[in-house]
Amino acid sequence: MNVPRPSRDLLTRYLPILTWAKTYNRDTATSDLVAAVIVTIMLIPQSLAYALLAGLPAEMGLYASILPLVAYAIFGTSRALAVGPVAVVSLMTAAAIGQLGLTSPAEIALAAITLAFISGVFLTLLGVLKLGFLANFLSHPVIAGFITASGILIAASQLKHIFGIDAGGHTLVELVRSIFEHLGETNLITLVIGVAATAFLFWVRKGLKPLLIKAGLSKRMADIFAKAGPVAAVVVTTLVAWIFALGDKGVRLVGEVPMGLPPLSAPSFDPGMWQTLLLPAVLISIIGFVESVSVAQTLAAKRRQRIDPDQELIGLGTSNIASAVTGGFPVTGGFSRSVVNFDAGAETPAAGAYTAVGIGIATLVLTPLLYFLPKATLAATIIVAVLSLVDFSILKKTWRYSKVDFTAVSATIVLTLLVGVEMGVSAGVLLSIFLHLYKTSKPHVAEVGLVPGTHHFRNVKRHTVDTLPGVLTLRVDESLYFVNARFLEDYVLERVAECENLNHVVLMFPAVNEVDMSALETLEELNRRLSEQGIRMHLTEIKGPVMDRLQRSHFLQDLSGEVFLSQYDAWCALKPDAPVGSQQKDVAAQ
Amino acid sequence: MNVPRPSRDLLTRYLPILTWAKTYNRDTATSDLVAAVIVTIMLIPQSLAYALLAGLPAEMGLYASILPLVAYAIFGTSRALAVGPVAVVSLMTAAAIGQLGLTSPAEIALAAITLAFISGVFLTLLGVLKLGFLANFLSHPVIAGFITASGILIAASQLKHIFGIDAGGHTLVELVRSIFEHLGETNLITLVIGVAATAFLFWVRKGLKPLLIKAGLSKRMADIFAKAGPVAAVVVTTLVAWIFALGDKGVRLVGEVPMGLPPLSAPSFDPGMWQTLLLPAVLISIIGFVESVSVAQTLAAKRRQRIDPDQELIGLGTSNIASAVTGGFPVTGGFSRSVVNFDAGAETPAAGAYTAVGIGIATLVLTPLLYFLPKATLAATIIVAVLSLVDFSILKKTWRYSKVDFTAVSATIVLTLLVGVEMGVSAGVLLSIFLHLYKTSKPHVAEVGLVPGTHHFRNVKRHTVDTLPGVLTLRVDESLYFVNARFLEDYVLERVAECENLNHVVLMFPAVNEVDMSALETLEELNRRLSEQGIRMHLTEIKGPVMDRLQRSHFLQDLSGEVFLSQYDAWCALKPDAPVGSQQKDVAAQ
Repeated sequence: MNVPRPSRDLLTRYLPILTWAKTYNRDTATSDLVAAVIVTIMLIPQSLAYALLAGLPAEMGLYASILPLVAYAIFGTSRALAVGPVAVVSLMTAAAIGQLGLTSPAEIALAAITLAFISGVFLTLLGVLKLGFLANFLSHPVIAGFITASGILIAASQLKHIFGIDAGGHTLVELVRSIFEHLGETNLITLVIGVAATAFLFWVRKGLKPLLIKAGLSKRMADIFAKAGPVAAVVVTTLVAWIFALGDKGVRLVGEVPMGLPPLSAPSFDPGMWQTLLLPAVLISIIGFVESVSVAQTLAAKRRQRIDPDQELIGLGTSNIASAVTGGFPVTGGFSRSVVNFDAGAETPAAGAYTAVGIGIATLVLTPLLYFLPKATLAATIIVAVLSLVDFSILKKTWRYSKVDFTAVSATIVLTLLVGVEMGVSAGVLLSIFLHLYKTSKPHVAEVGLVPGTHHFRNVKRHTVDTLPGVLTLRVDESLYFVNARFLEDYVLERVAECENLNHVVLMFPAVNEVDMSALETLEELNRRLSEQGIRMHLTEIKGPVMDRLQRSHFLQDLSGEVFLSQYDAWCALKPDAPVGSQQKDVAAQ
Repeated sequence: MNVPRPSRDLLTRYLPILTWAKTYNRDTATSDLVAAVIVTIMLIPQSLAYALLAGLPAEMGLYASILPLVAYAIFGTSRALAVGPVAVVSLMTAAAIGQLGLTSPAEIALAAITLAFISGVFLTLLGVLKLGFLANFLSHPVIAGFITASGILIAASQLKHIFGIDAGGHTLVELVRSIFEHLGETNLITLVIGVAATAFLFWVRKGLKPLLIKAGLSKRMADIFAKAGPVAAVVVTTLVAWIFALGDKGVRLVGEVPMGLPPLSAPSFDPGMWQTLLLPAVLISIIGFVESVSVAQTLAAKRRQRIDPDQELIGLGTSNIASAVTGGFPVTGGFSRSVVNFDAGAETPAAGAYTAVGIGIATLVLTPLLYFLPKATLAATIIVAVLSLVDFSILKKTWRYSKVDFTAVSATIVLTLLVGVEMGVSAGVLLSIFLHLYKTSKPHVAEVGLVPGTHHFRNVKRHTVDTLPGVLTLRVDESLYFVNARFLEDYVLERVAECENLNHVVLMFPAVNEVDMSALETLEELNRRLSEQGIRMHLTEIKGPVMDRLQRSHFLQDLSGEVFLSQYDAWCALKPDAPVGSQQKDVAAQ
């Protein structure tokens, strides 16, 4: 590891900038500057496009790409993460604001600012309270399914700009129906521009890169050039729209974008608005964090660096607060721009701050040039960008590997498409937790026997093994807790009822990692019931932490049988020819 | 087992009455009749009291004790369970109806009927869909805590009747404050009756039973007599109130109770009311079911009978629907009356039907006599009954045994007392699930070594064991799934970073009962990262079901190391003097 671990000093923990600023020199600055120029060029069309996707004026996209980057440079721990508006979060922003039913552009902008603020405060709080692990409650398949479904929704939502029609909706059905209803109003010039831009951008992605590599460029440079495709599309279509005055022919243009640095802004503190935006803000925060942290972790691993998830929460939280006070909307770490930043050689978060300066300059000088930019071009950049997110292979993979994961991912996809992003991701999380608990509610219990000539015990159904007469040995393959406590009791009593002349039940606990209070009561009850039937209950291979806890109860004293360190010890003691009294009630734990 | 297992015939599954009615004879009928008479006598004051507790007119308590018992006799599987109004469910009913802010008695009664109907439909649906296992999501300590806190709330809510004042509230603070505010309005005669009745009932419980046993009664008969205490209190105080015309002196009496069998009634289908009552109805159903099924199971076990939890749901569901159509309120199986029924010799659910006839007769002839019954007497019977539910020992037990269970139970108690029954039980359920997931999110991982002279591997921190140079062996004590997948990756990489000259990492999986898709991706990533560092990753003691699943992925082919059946095989193969090539990449599972 060539990066010093964060010291225990509280100041450097909360201000990672202090760690890297000390060793900052001209070489690092040059690398960062080069990366910043490239990312700036890429970020301008992206910022405009994602503002459009969120249903906001174009300039808000630029505003969201200035101060948030500076905040992340101060508080973030990833060296290469580039924050700003991203596709999925912008879609979720549009859905959240849509619930408020607002019509005035000023109110809509205020709602977006408020959403960024709530999300920023929530993320910062999670970080300060070190609750970053909560993000682990989102399973990988659920995230993959959600992103795939979001990509489809986003692409569908942009089709109206390609056709130049008015259409809307937050679910796939609404969107498709609305597009078909308005198809008659299609503006043909817009359609030509939109389709041409989309085709061009697809070609840049798939066809240009191999060409550039053939022409002698390094793979890295070819990649960066290909990422600049949207800029070319923006420049060319803007020129065409200006020269042919396409605005007069019904082609929708971005129009007037206010010139100048971001305004100072403040969120609304209207309780009604907060109530509606709270849950969406929480979901946006978590989805944004999970996306961002996984990008950051992937990039950090490539250079053997570390990121600190709890500090990342603070970095993203302050970025969103910064966005809220400068007229922006929710932001997070974006995948493609971070990769470009990384590949272009960014070495510290200062690259982000330089990018902020670049975008700031753009707001001062470039905004008049954006007047003639066709919205169809922005829609094309969004469509091409998000279709790379769409990946149904997760369905095939989970179908083969685990039906439970498959159920969670398909529910997430279907609900996201048909009901909306919030329902989709919430259902995915709750369903995966519920299905996990459900699986553990009916644990696998195997009857085991001795593999001849060894000390190993294996499932009687999978291996040829020896068993002892009058002894039923069950290996419980699950932690015992309230959800499955009753199952175990019923299962053991049922198995016992099927056996004749039973004297001993041995429960083998090598896979029991926990016995909670409910399960303890069940084991006590089981012990009592078996005693009444003249059957002794023994336990073997109890793990250390479980044994520590059992010793704090009366259970081991009340146990009718013994506790054995290993199953083989139990076998020897319970063999018909074993010497009487070969008992080891002393406490033995793994 | 002296009871035939339910046949697969659908009709007998859904109509348990068909099973026992075939063998019904005069002997069984006599036993059932005797039990029914005793339970009827006990149930009359209880029914009136719990109606009072639920904030409903006294006659609704009687109505809820007629048709529901018949429905349970037809659809229930327990031979001894006695259904009807019970304390905790009545408290929850009062809390649920309180949320509607109704004032007219007719509307309040309609809300109670609707609550019983929703609860009945919900329970029946759960039963038909065989979702009885959902009740397992309530942990034993959470139930114990909830019942204790409910007992306190119920007792506090009845104090106003003892003092003869107007007071109200749904939390402990509200109740206590309200009682203090109105203490000046205390009616002294009421207080004397209330305190005397309470003292008498406590004495009957604690002092009379030993006396009766001394006088030669069997313990069972003494028990039954003691349970008749409330009837004596009712009769005596009613006579006193009549003779001295206490109603004119400000003592509140039950007053006019309509004479006659229950009226036919129908629930409201007002969507607003349903929306408010839905969650309370679900909570009432689950709490009622859990209480009832545990009573039924305890009693069934004593006679080596079985109950079917899914059919129990149908039994309780139809009971509640029956209650809703005959002017009642939510009912469930009660603990004390079921025990009395059992001890008095009830042999089949027919005893419940006979009890229903008994209560029906009471509505026809006894209601005029109830006019002079002081409410203070009913409050005394409730207080004495519920204080036996209050048991704080669960706090001590869980504190000693498991801090996680302690947290869940204390949160349940505190929130039930201070915020209300619904918040208390919901928080208890959610918190115990969250804490369980949290525990598994940071699993115990032990470095293990060979116990000299054996084939056993144990924690290096707990035992004197041998380890191999260049080999790190970790036993993972938890199923691997999305919540802890990242933890494992971080943990292993951190441990690896601390070791010098490491060539092999062995992950021992005897306690890994599941590897979900998220965890599989983590293992793949771990394998890749360790490979990059020139470290091979091996797996040992993989359980059968886990191995079956891993074989459906590419992971085992990509694994840099081997899969060993036992940890000892891995030890032999990785020993420095092991013959090169002693590898067994063939698939081995427990």
